[in-house]
Amino acid sequence: MAPTDFQPCGVLALLSDFGTQDPYVGVMKGEVLARAPRAVLVDLTHEIPPQDVRRAAWFLMHSRAHFPAGTVFLCVVDPGVGSARALVLALDRGQAFLGPDNGLLAPALSDAAQVYDLDPRPASFTFHGRDILAPAAGELLAGAPPESFGPPRARPLARLELARARRSARGELLAEVLFADRYGNLILSAGEGDLAGGAAGWEVQVGGSALPLARTYSDALPGELVALVDSYAAVEIAVRDGSAAERLGLLPGAQLTLRRRA
Amino acid sequence: MAPTDFQPCGVLALLSDFGTQDPYVGVMKGEVLARAPRAVLVDLTHEIPPQDVRRAAWFLMHSRAHFPAGTVFLCVVDPGVGSARALVLALDRGQAFLGPDNGLLAPALSDAAQVYDLDPRPASFTFHGRDILAPAAGELLAGAPPESFGPPRARPLARLELARARRSARGELLAEVLFADRYGNLILSAGEGDLAGGAAGWEVQVGGSALPLARTYSDALPGELVALVDSYAAVEIAVRDGSAAERLGLLPGAQLTLRRRA
Amino acid sequence: MAPTDFQPCGVLALLSDFGTQDPYVGVMKGEVLARAPRAVLVDLTHEIPPQDVRRAAWFLMHSRAHFPAGTVFLCVVDPGVGSARALVLALDRGQAFLGPDNGLLAPALSDAAQVYDLDPRPASFTFHGRDILAPAAGELLAGAPPESFGPPRARPLARLELARARRSARGELLAEVLFADRYGNLILSAGEGDLAGGAAGWEVQVGGSALPLARTYSDALPGELVALVDSYAAVEIAVRDGSAAERLGLLPGAQLTLRRRA
Repeated sequence: MAPTDFQPCGVLALLSDFGTQDPYVGVMKGEVLARAPRAVLVDLTHEIPPQDVRRAAWFLMHSRAHFPAGTVFLCVVDPGVGSARALVLALDRGQAFLGPDNGLLAPALSDAAQVYDLDPRPASFTFHGRDILAPAAGELLAGAPPESFGPPRARPLARLELARARRSARGELLAEVLFADRYGNLILSAGEGDLAGGAAGWEVQVGGSALPLARTYSDALPGELVALVDSYAAVEIAVRDGSAAERLGLLPGAQLTLRRRA
Repeated sequence: MAPTDFQPCGVLALLSDFGTQDPYVGVMKGEVLARAPRAVLVDLTHEIPPQDVRRAAWFLMHSRAHFPAGTVFLCVVDPGVGSARALVLALDRGQAFLGPDNGLLAPALSDAAQVYDLDPRPASFTFHGRDILAPAAGELLAGAPPESFGPPRARPLARLELARARRSARGELLAEVLFADRYGNLILSAGEGDLAGGAAGWEVQVGGSALPLARTYSDALPGELVALVDSYAAVEIAVRDGSAAERLGLLPGAQLTLRRRA
Repeated sequence: MAPTDFQPCGVLALLSDFGTQDPYVGVMKGEVLARAPRAVLVDLTHEIPPQDVRRAAWFLMHSRAHFPAGTVFLCVVDPGVGSARALVLALDRGQAFLGPDNGLLAPALSDAAQVYDLDPRPASFTFHGRDILAPAAGELLAGAPPESFGPPRARPLARLELARARRSARGELLAEVLFADRYGNLILSAGEGDLAGGAAGWEVQVGGSALPLARTYSDALPGELVALVDSYAAVEIAVRDGSAAERLGLLPGAQLTLRRRA
């Protein structure tokens, strides 16, 4: 399979900051189903903090490999709606990605991705997800060829700097808290690939003491802090059966240091 | 197509005040799928404030056109469950609507809608969504003819007064805040159709100053107030990349005045 | 149909404590769809309080009968992920249940259930829902025979004590508040089957006065307390068009007494 071959498998995965209290997600799905009534719709999440393109980009990057070839990803975190930012279709590794050109898609894509600028359509000035991206997704699911949506894009996609761990002169890793998940687990900007020699050789400094990286949550006793490489392959600080975010009071952006164990 | 022709396309859209913390929505879907196992299920929203029939009616009215012909809408905001209120099936413009006769459905329907009173079924006294409406939705999706659900209704459907903008003697529009959406955008009871001469000729009085109606959110600078006609075709007050509801402290029911620009 | 006959109908019902802010549920669905791209996915709920296996067990027990034969239930509330607890597949009354062996599944199953221990698979140490249970669910939906997932289990499933009403020496029922639902309705540990002679003959002591069990919410006036047998067949205390949890300030575990009416 060439990196940009795309055959829809019928699955549409949606990612947005729309929340679920309003009918915004629902009407996007309606516009998809008007064109592909048998689509299988999956919500990645719609609770991205409003306008947080980085969080959405991070989630998309870590989620796409769990979906089959032929999946269409419809991604809308779009503070620039109505402005001159482009809307794009990207094909990569057998999957398709629709979204604004604001940094949301780029981290999920390989260098081999084929990108198209979407042709303009009649649309509201405030909801291009419903009026442009969802119809395009429906048409793609119904078999429209990718090149029918607009011209191949010459310029590279917009990119946002995502937080990464930095290596200090002394060989430490300086990471930051990216966010807390539903459990209050703190996900850090250091990943498994940053941990030279393997996670078991590292510890993270938390509140004056050093927490060695464990294997899983139940390596700690209930109520205890535990650090580990999580299912994102990111370093994570948790409290077994509790909330590390509450326990430690650490907010996104808080700095933490990882060291090799003595 | 006659207004009341209905051929199910396999799509079921659900709207309720059930929230998502309990299995109430899930068991309704189970009862649908027991009768139509290949249905495509879409949540419009289940976070209607408890018992807020007007909000649900407003959302349904603004959402239905985005769904294909053949869609079944299953709508349950039902403070009168177990009382004598009827349950109805309405056919309109190729779509079908199931819900209690309490004002929820009427604003979404045209004058040509064909309405049936649902025959009674064995049911709990507290959850007719699960015990009567979901089974009916499943049967409808599976091809049961609409007239098999009960007799045509003679009386008109119940109606609730929905807030609308009023015109003052001086030609101003007096509107109220209907609700804040997920972003803190304030949706007003004035719509595009109320703005004689076009939205660009109007301004809204907010906190002592006049905010001219703009075209889109990014017509304002980050952090600035912006008023516009939104994707509901309603007048909306937003803060770009922020929350107008927090900024202005306006609650549903707050009165605002729109004037023609000088 | 023998109790353990299982033919997938294409429906997958998911139950977890993952919440919806993270992509955890989405990537599980991706792994299912990679193996069964036409599956019909239903969320029972993902807002089980973190690690609350009892709540999930109670919801599953009360929901399964509303889903068709051939449904696969994928249940993940798994504080012991990465530990030695088994993962199991249970077949019962034509439905299939996948989850950890921690008490979640047992209350939903009959004595005739056939249980298999899942064979190990390569997996992360922190997310067996995504890495083991979702792939198994997808394979099961795609037609893999249950006995291909691992050996029949000899030992009984783990069980947790679920709260039940106790009968006092004087014939009273001593129940506790299990939880408040989305409306603030208080669901008690007493069920219809505990109410000898029928619900209408009983009353519940609340705040110094006796509330006779009514038939439905609208048997009370707006704002009034009402007790009834609800759609779970449990005794429930509600405030019509309001929140009993707020009105009464009762938390899960609070004790209440039911008496026969004089």
